[in-house]
Amino acid sequence: MQAPDMERWARVQEQLASRNVAALVCRLTENVLMLSGYWPILGRSVVVFPTDGNPVLIAPVSESGEAERGWISDVRTFRAWRIGDIDPEASITRLLGQVFTERGLLGRRIAYEGSFGDIAAPQRFFEPWAGIHTVLSSWVDAGGGGEWVDFGPQLVELAGIKTEREIARVRLANEVADLGLTAFFRESVPGRRESDIAAAVESAILTLGIGYKGVVHARGEAEVISGPRTASAWDFPTTTDRRVENGDLVLIEFAVVADGYWSDLTRTVVAGAFNDEQRRLATAQRAAYMAALKAMKPGVPDAEPDAAGRVALEAYGMRQFFAHHTGHGIGFRYHEAIPSVHPDSKGVLQAGMITSLEPGLYGDTFGYRVEDNVLITPTGAEPLCHSERWPGLET
Amino acid sequence: MQAPDMERWARVQEQLASRNVAALVCRLTENVLMLSGYWPILGRSVVVFPTDGNPVLIAPVSESGEAERGWISDVRTFRAWRIGDIDPEASITRLLGQVFTERGLLGRRIAYEGSFGDIAAPQRFFEPWAGIHTVLSSWVDAGGGGEWVDFGPQLVELAGIKTEREIARVRLANEVADLGLTAFFRESVPGRRESDIAAAVESAILTLGIGYKGVVHARGEAEVISGPRTASAWDFPTTTDRRVENGDLVLIEFAVVADGYWSDLTRTVVAGAFNDEQRRLATAQRAAYMAALKAMKPGVPDAEPDAAGRVALEAYGMRQFFAHHTGHGIGFRYHEAIPSVHPDSKGVLQAGMITSLEPGLYGDTFGYRVEDNVLITPTGAEPLCHSERWPGLET
Repeated sequence: MQAPDMERWARVQEQLASRNVAALVCRLTENVLMLSGYWPILGRSVVVFPTDGNPVLIAPVSESGEAERGWISDVRTFRAWRIGDIDPEASITRLLGQVFTERGLLGRRIAYEGSFGDIAAPQRFFEPWAGIHTVLSSWVDAGGGGEWVDFGPQLVELAGIKTEREIARVRLANEVADLGLTAFFRESVPGRRESDIAAAVESAILTLGIGYKGVVHARGEAEVISGPRTASAWDFPTTTDRRVENGDLVLIEFAVVADGYWSDLTRTVVAGAFNDEQRRLATAQRAAYMAALKAMKPGVPDAEPDAAGRVALEAYGMRQFFAHHTGHGIGFRYHEAIPSVHPDSKGVLQAGMITSLEPGLYGDTFGYRVEDNVLITPTGAEPLCHSERWPGLET
Repeated sequence: MQAPDMERWARVQEQLASRNVAALVCRLTENVLMLSGYWPILGRSVVVFPTDGNPVLIAPVSESGEAERGWISDVRTFRAWRIGDIDPEASITRLLGQVFTERGLLGRRIAYEGSFGDIAAPQRFFEPWAGIHTVLSSWVDAGGGGEWVDFGPQLVELAGIKTEREIARVRLANEVADLGLTAFFRESVPGRRESDIAAAVESAILTLGIGYKGVVHARGEAEVISGPRTASAWDFPTTTDRRVENGDLVLIEFAVVADGYWSDLTRTVVAGAFNDEQRRLATAQRAAYMAALKAMKPGVPDAEPDAAGRVALEAYGMRQFFAHHTGHGIGFRYHEAIPSVHPDSKGVLQAGMITSLEPGLYGDTFGYRVEDNVLITPTGAEPLCHSERWPGLET
């Protein structure tokens, strides 16, 4: 059991109090993690977080060990999946009623995850649980029939600024990701297929990431695209069995999760040596990256670093190739909404935000992107991954 | 573009007609796949399936190529994620309104995915979209404000019986999984860590599965547990960096997805040679597996094969070690609700169902399970994976 992240708890309590609710009930993986420091295996765990008093975690008994690594000391477990065990949803609802009774929450105004879109994967990533609206009416009944109000937007906002401890964990996820990028650089050679490279990278996360500096569970998703396929890298292509040819661009879109905290990185290399056009592309991308990074600090409108990157591309005549936004939030999920480093954003950067920084250049036959996760510090901005960014490019 | 799976379409239309709805609108990955044969990359695609007339697929333009591999010919695409593109949800809602207008669906009674729990991962598995309830009111408005009724239970029921074409795809997923199990058998030796074995297995799926008999996209999740950790294999443990010792049991819980169709397999091996106790365990488990398999055929209550397996264990004095159900459905998801081969089940097996068959024996220090996916045929039952089941055990 760790000491609670009091910085996180205080911020949540403040938001709850300002919304005049008695408690927050969360079940989505990313929110359970934010409130408890515990990354659910199945995504069936629930946190009851009262505006006053200590929170309670409801979890399958089989996840007790995982829960121990978090910081909620009041854990109520339920048995499930064995002959004679009742339906886990019934157990959760019953425990929820008990907690509401004990904590004087019956019939009061309760915040919950009413609205969401993309959700984070739990440890067992192939089948997350997302059925809050399916169980909600039974939860409301068990909770004494009070008013349940949507706290979705507030949760997104709360996630947008990380605590010291959360920053350390996202930094660690970036370090783990670096282990995968090393494999990417090594394997991106002519003759390998995209799928071979992806396999080597994901293997590195499992074999080197699990156990790295205390990381208990780590996984990677490597989408490797090569040659003319890189032209669509602005979108969401997935790995194929295309064989890399000499001189091809090879790009990795890389998600890594380490104990529930995420990194989202991209690297592009040439399988062989840069030709002149590729070198110009990389040089321009680097200029955009550096200009955007330099423009990032607290108090700066989100749109400014985005604009700075685009201006830097003008010197290379490449502004039109930068098709998308410069950055999105990251940490509890692979993609978060805050900040949004985008020309249309009305937000302002604040210390503790973590944003992707990913100017990308895409033509009809090429794509080139280098993406980092950048912490907004009190005085500027710091990339969290120290993997080489433009291998083969002269400084 | 494939010809539509008319068997599937006819069944869905029949269900819709019987519920007196004009159309079904689906967005969850597993349901989009069932209706269209197309496995979404991001999980943001929508199928409008009228009770009469041809369905329409709404998808990001970047997934046009994937959609082409399905069987809905009327595809409406939207651009997203580039500067100037509007929010994808707004695009989807607008297209939905157009389709409703064209098809005379405005203001009519519409079925949708109102209730669900666990959801299937799309190709980009780390961040599925699950926000139907977040967008529902705007969909209802765009659709002319008719009554939208929950079709969740009907979708589960429809998924429970597979068509010929779906059976072929689940069979193929099982073949792909076999490529991973070969790696598992090879790598489960003393000195390897669980994470090393898992990495080898998942690598095999990427490197051998992508491109295998036309499979475009394949992924595996290998949870490898060893030694005394196998005692908790009835639950959902995940891979650690524990090093396998000579004589350890090594168990893999293995999910594989091939173009959206799933397999769920388990194998247990000894790192080294069976000792007497392990041999007895494996022999008993095999007896339970064979007895349950033999009892499976159309018209048989779900509970019967479960009971048959338990009775077979009695001869070995091991009935008490079989903690959980015998089987669950599989195909569009890693775990489906139909059938449920469980002592308490009230269901009856039918041809076209695919069930897991997974008697497992768990004590304080050991766990042993072999799991297959079994098709209920017109006359009996057929395991879909031909990987060795009890390696090292005399027949």
